[in-house]
Amino acid sequence: MPVTGRDVAICDATLALLAEVGYDRMSMDAVAARAHASKATIYRRWPGKRELVLDALHTRHGPSESPPDTGTLRGDLVTSLRAMAGSDGCDEGELMAGVLRAMRHSPELGNCMRGEVLDRKRATFRTIVDRAVLRGELPSAAPADLAHEVAGALWVQRVLVVGGEVDDAFIVHVTDDVLIPLLSHVPTTTDLAYDQETP
Amino acid sequence: MPVTGRDVAICDATLALLAEVGYDRMSMDAVAARAHASKATIYRRWPGKRELVLDALHTRHGPSESPPDTGTLRGDLVTSLRAMAGSDGCDEGELMAGVLRAMRHSPELGNCMRGEVLDRKRATFRTIVDRAVLRGELPSAAPADLAHEVAGALWVQRVLVVGGEVDDAFIVHVTDDVLIPLLSHVPTTTDLAYDQETP
Repeated sequence: MPVTGRDVAICDATLALLAEVGYDRMSMDAVAARAHASKATIYRRWPGKRELVLDALHTRHGPSESPPDTGTLRGDLVTSLRAMAGSDGCDEGELMAGVLRAMRHSPELGNCMRGEVLDRKRATFRTIVDRAVLRGELPSAAPADLAHEVAGALWVQRVLVVGGEVDDAFIVHVTDDVLIPLLSHVPTTTDLAYDQETP
Repeated sequence: MPVTGRDVAICDATLALLAEVGYDRMSMDAVAARAHASKATIYRRWPGKRELVLDALHTRHGPSESPPDTGTLRGDLVTSLRAMAGSDGCDEGELMAGVLRAMRHSPELGNCMRGEVLDRKRATFRTIVDRAVLRGELPSAAPADLAHEVAGALWVQRVLVVGGEVDDAFIVHVTDDVLIPLLSHVPTTTDLAYDQETP
């Protein structure tokens, strides 16, 4: 993760270029020029393009390791989703399209994204759900990984398909209409019967 | 919608080219060559590229106007999702990436896709949910549009982010783990309390 103002500038330049020209055509020279940094400075901090891109994506999309404890499930979800939304003026749609294109054409980057970045978000959801279970807000079997999967899916659809902002109205919609109902759902005998008869 | 074998071949060629070269670089000449049809044949059926692409996407992704009535909510959902999955060997990921790219760069196509194609899928979900309400399987306020939104989001994520197949295991997962719980969810007083205190 970036630790200095210059690191942040380099990560911002990396994401802007990733959105504009894509992973393959993004050069370290261009990152250096855009961030007003020397290539030596970049290479002292990151061994290569892949590491730089992953770190920049972590910084933008990865929530903090320990999501803030607001005292309620809903507060934790809304706060963490807001933190993931970012607000640096980068075109989220172009960035996501660029990242997905890069993932398709660079399997190594794809595996890293799916592994590292998504694993961290999944861990955030687990922490939030564990807390809610301890508070008695959720049943102990509440599906944290499912909530992570669905939240991510709605996010991608919002940005890529709908072309809309990840704003507060959207975050509240995802939290109240989807995540809390899914997490609160207690399987009934009907669900069990469903499991046994796949049409 | 295509009505003859030749129409189907033209639609298939259109989607294959859309996935390969994208909307902007796709020419009617290339479609004609690929489908072994004359351009005159194509223009007799479709006034232009936009109409052809939309029709081809409808054919591939649009479920039939009246989804099959299997007698259960779960059966209807699984059957309709299967019908939407298609199975013509086209690379779904490349196709979806190509369509989304085209939507970003051609707002008119984007509006048509969001309007026409998504509206038809939404209508399918409403029909399925209405039937389930009549059968007594779901509460009358079951959120059909929400189910449509979430199913679409999981689909896009599956194909574009995970890079996986829309296979039966995935369809059963979406149906049993997400759609039926969301549709069956009855808002409780806790949900109402949530509505009043946005953090």
